[in-house]
Amino acid sequence: MARKNQSAIDLRTRLGLAIKRERSGLGISQGELAHRSGLHRTYVSDLERGERNPSVGSILKIADALHVTVAELFQVRDSRKG
Amino acid sequence: MARKNQSAIDLRTRLGLAIKRERSGLGISQGELAHRSGLHRTYVSDLERGERNPSVGSILKIADALHVTVAELFQVRDSRKG
Repeated sequence: MARKNQSAIDLRTRLGLAIKRERSGLGISQGELAHRSGLHRTYVSDLERGERNPSVGSILKIADALHVTVAELFQVRDSRKG
Repeated sequence: MARKNQSAIDLRTRLGLAIKRERSGLGISQGELAHRSGLHRTYVSDLERGERNPSVGSILKIADALHVTVAELFQVRDSRKG
């Protein structure tokens, strides 16, 4: 079985991009996402830039605020998906 | 759009069960998973029981050691999947 190619930085970067993509899809600002998730705006900004190593609890708050599952935030989007 | 039903405890419990399922599938002990992931055995034990709020970095170490993606550990398994 091949080892999947994952690095911590890649993963955090992809997570940040997924958060940004979903937030943009809702048409809300980082400040609004922070408000809805109960996190600080600077924390949300750092998350989107992949500069945090968030806990599952924090990711869940973001996912809930974005109306997606945690799994969806980690899934790699490809050309077969929107 | 309906809000997805996720709670922090549910999520951690499901993550723990997923880790246990994948570890069992590989036929390795918690100690061996700890060794392969570079985490403490007690931490792995706590994770499987849903008693930790791990960071993305820790989950990645576990996922790599289990040869799965982080997304796979968060996906809800149902009867359509193995």
